[in-house]
Amino acid sequence: MSEKELQLTDPSNDATSILSSIKARDVTAIEVLTAFCKRAAVAHQLLCCLTQIFFEEGLARAKELDEYYERTGQLVGPLHGLPISVKDHMGLKGKRATAGFSGDLDKLISTEDGPINGILRNAGCVFYCKTTLPQGIMHMEVYSFWGQTLNPHNTKLTSGGSSGGCGALVSFGGSPLSIGSDIGGSVRSPASCCGIYTLKPTTGRLPGNGLRGCSAAPGNDAILPTSGPLARSSRDINLFFEVVLSAQPWLQSMNLVPLPWRYEASKSAWSGNGGKIRLGVMWNDGNVLPQPPVRRALRTMVEALRNSNDYEIVDYEPLYHKDLTRMAESLYFTDGGAGVRARAAVTGEPLCHLTEWAITLPGVKDHTIHELWELLLERDALRAKYYAYWNSQKIDVLLCPVHYGPAQPLQTTKYWGYTSAFNCADFPAAVFPTGLKVDPTLDPNDVEPRKPWSEADAHSMATYEPELFTNAPLCLQLVAKRNADEVVMQALKEFEKVLPLRNESIYVY
Amino acid sequence: MSEKELQLTDPSNDATSILSSIKARDVTAIEVLTAFCKRAAVAHQLLCCLTQIFFEEGLARAKELDEYYERTGQLVGPLHGLPISVKDHMGLKGKRATAGFSGDLDKLISTEDGPINGILRNAGCVFYCKTTLPQGIMHMEVYSFWGQTLNPHNTKLTSGGSSGGCGALVSFGGSPLSIGSDIGGSVRSPASCCGIYTLKPTTGRLPGNGLRGCSAAPGNDAILPTSGPLARSSRDINLFFEVVLSAQPWLQSMNLVPLPWRYEASKSAWSGNGGKIRLGVMWNDGNVLPQPPVRRALRTMVEALRNSNDYEIVDYEPLYHKDLTRMAESLYFTDGGAGVRARAAVTGEPLCHLTEWAITLPGVKDHTIHELWELLLERDALRAKYYAYWNSQKIDVLLCPVHYGPAQPLQTTKYWGYTSAFNCADFPAAVFPTGLKVDPTLDPNDVEPRKPWSEADAHSMATYEPELFTNAPLCLQLVAKRNADEVVMQALKEFEKVLPLRNESIYVY
Repeated sequence: MSEKELQLTDPSNDATSILSSIKARDVTAIEVLTAFCKRAAVAHQLLCCLTQIFFEEGLARAKELDEYYERTGQLVGPLHGLPISVKDHMGLKGKRATAGFSGDLDKLISTEDGPINGILRNAGCVFYCKTTLPQGIMHMEVYSFWGQTLNPHNTKLTSGGSSGGCGALVSFGGSPLSIGSDIGGSVRSPASCCGIYTLKPTTGRLPGNGLRGCSAAPGNDAILPTSGPLARSSRDINLFFEVVLSAQPWLQSMNLVPLPWRYEASKSAWSGNGGKIRLGVMWNDGNVLPQPPVRRALRTMVEALRNSNDYEIVDYEPLYHKDLTRMAESLYFTDGGAGVRARAAVTGEPLCHLTEWAITLPGVKDHTIHELWELLLERDALRAKYYAYWNSQKIDVLLCPVHYGPAQPLQTTKYWGYTSAFNCADFPAAVFPTGLKVDPTLDPNDVEPRKPWSEADAHSMATYEPELFTNAPLCLQLVAKRNADEVVMQALKEFEKVLPLRNESIYVY
Repeated sequence: MSEKELQLTDPSNDATSILSSIKARDVTAIEVLTAFCKRAAVAHQLLCCLTQIFFEEGLARAKELDEYYERTGQLVGPLHGLPISVKDHMGLKGKRATAGFSGDLDKLISTEDGPINGILRNAGCVFYCKTTLPQGIMHMEVYSFWGQTLNPHNTKLTSGGSSGGCGALVSFGGSPLSIGSDIGGSVRSPASCCGIYTLKPTTGRLPGNGLRGCSAAPGNDAILPTSGPLARSSRDINLFFEVVLSAQPWLQSMNLVPLPWRYEASKSAWSGNGGKIRLGVMWNDGNVLPQPPVRRALRTMVEALRNSNDYEIVDYEPLYHKDLTRMAESLYFTDGGAGVRARAAVTGEPLCHLTEWAITLPGVKDHTIHELWELLLERDALRAKYYAYWNSQKIDVLLCPVHYGPAQPLQTTKYWGYTSAFNCADFPAAVFPTGLKVDPTLDPNDVEPRKPWSEADAHSMATYEPELFTNAPLCLQLVAKRNADEVVMQALKEFEKVLPLRNESIYVY
């Protein structure tokens, strides 16, 4: 790769900046895509993050875009020339899709773009590869017949999942923007593990983008997934939502809320005294105490925000979080996991360790229709209680861990509660890098032994090893109430005044 | 009843007008409620439309409101002193609720107001009675252990259902506004049968108002119900939505779209040439040809609109309407109706004829979880196809029958397709009276025999008897795309320029 290619693809160069360079004719779409293809190829060789590679097709499209711009002086759209990668299960015209089962291979071919992909394509983007996902799309890591995706910051660790191919690729510099999906943490986990940005929106803001039938539980709507972007900056997240929602996808897709991206329009007074942001901090979820580096990151962030004097900061008790976590577990596989077993059985593919774990959690069981109805009533009652509790705290946004730890050793990530609770509640949640990374000298294991709060907590305690985790990025999660997606991003923009935090910070505890 | 009481309660005196009179001190809340209590009592004696009567409690509340207004010069809220009745299954603090099963009696007591009722109460309304519903809330009539509700225009005919108690009471003059619910036509059928106004909104616009567990299939969310007002004028419908949505119910209730009532704000250009309303007309749904008077009403209305020259009118083929009707049938009872049978069995109550009919339709069957998921995939695919078809017609609103006929002879109403299709698609749909009524001389039976289109069509043909149907009001249905609830009401306001139509109209065919 040339020096220019390295600069172009460097994770510090975000999509917004790349688009400006193309518009200013500092670089062509072909040059941009060529650089990303090279870096994506390297990423895949080192990290195993791609499932399909169609660079030639992308280059032909980039050439067309360059010629169009040259000829007309006009850009095709707001994403003219931007390379975008998408998760393997998503619909991309003419390409195959899988849900991480080998039996899907070459059976599921998309005859048209998924709704989001169609909008992005019309906006001028260039598709050039699809990214890995785990068996059944239901691990918080990526392991399947496609292989094991590794973390670009430390290859002994996971990239997170299920959109872990997206996370590894963007973080490594192989893609400026990648489209994933999240039903339990699947864009937030990889963003957190890989040190990049995402927003899991409220369901109903973005259309589904997956190929029909390409999921662990096709047709199950007891808990809904949502698409989401993995990006290099928070402004790229806004760009993505601005572009997709400007196309008014609710005119085509059922079940969408007819709301544009109100990032600017919806700015209003914050709720705290003197117009400050009233920020809740949930130090832990009451079920699993975060591993030491996450605790440090959260403390450091809160201290930095406190020192900035722009926030009214209050503690937020994790009321109902255990219930939300357990409810989410129950809602994913209301068939007791039989569908997942059947999908794997098609080719005699063994169930992966983490697939088996997910479908044998205590909350998972097969249901009769009446048992299902009872479960859905419980779900709705729980949501109502949680909503009332949230309202009673009168906070604008909530800051909390994304996970019990940073990226974990391969095939050990168990417990999704820090993210799945907000799928169950259907609250929008962003992930952002604090700038901190695991440092064994700053993040030793706890000296005082403590009694585990739960089986998952015991697992987390047993898994953490400071040396092994070295260099893992430390990210945090920012949450707002249902449909207040733009509020999350507005608060994140304020947060950025104190970011990045530094490891040698005075705020180390 | 005094002359003043008769005037106050006359169906020509709408809620908006009553509220103005109270504000202007032309009448007190006590006087208003006293008049409505008297007329409601007469209505119940003639039509069997009430399940619970708590006039004293209402009068005490009205007294408080009068005293508050006298003392402070302020109204409690925009509904200060308005008597409102609610359907029996809805939550009203301290009151029992039933789903039309005798086994519910005195078992289900509301400890708090349903979300809508709470908002209405805070806005100053007065509750004074609850209204009848059928066994299981799933007939398009009203018959249950509560008795048989009759049509105020012709007691040989049904009031429609399931919110038939609301419809009969409002139409008779016993209530200026009544709150019902609709999952297959349950506010539109009684509005149509009784000659009044309603809007079944898109789901997610109004919170649920029913007591938990008080339905035919508690927990089933394969197809969603919605609340809706039955009213004396279209401006009262707007008033209801304005009041309820001003309270921002989405801050309390999950699954609501955070949209205010945009009746004024959302006015924009119509889609037709020269800014005309582009109106689709669906003459029939391809499954059941409407009985003669409904065909006359639709023709007369279309001719009046055509003559007004304010509309671009196009035919709308009923593509997918059979599928939507069948899908709705399948979604109501995914347990094969076992829950309904069990609810009745609690007290050994026999299943009513129309209950048995509804749970033994061809689409009704018990499902395993995987069969249910498959059904939900079919549902979503059908919705997507229908949405695309609707978009391709480029219409602002659709005018069509509400039902295959006007109010039908008691316990004969079978086939819900004209309304249930729009529950399945989740499109907002209003009902309005044309001013026309069945007249045997204008509405003879068809002279030419024709081959029935379906079993339901044969039933409709066999049921229609001009003399028997005399005086039944003729209403029509106005529909817009999902979440365009305000567009329906804006178009209806335009329609009113040609309303009421007259039976001696030149437009008779």
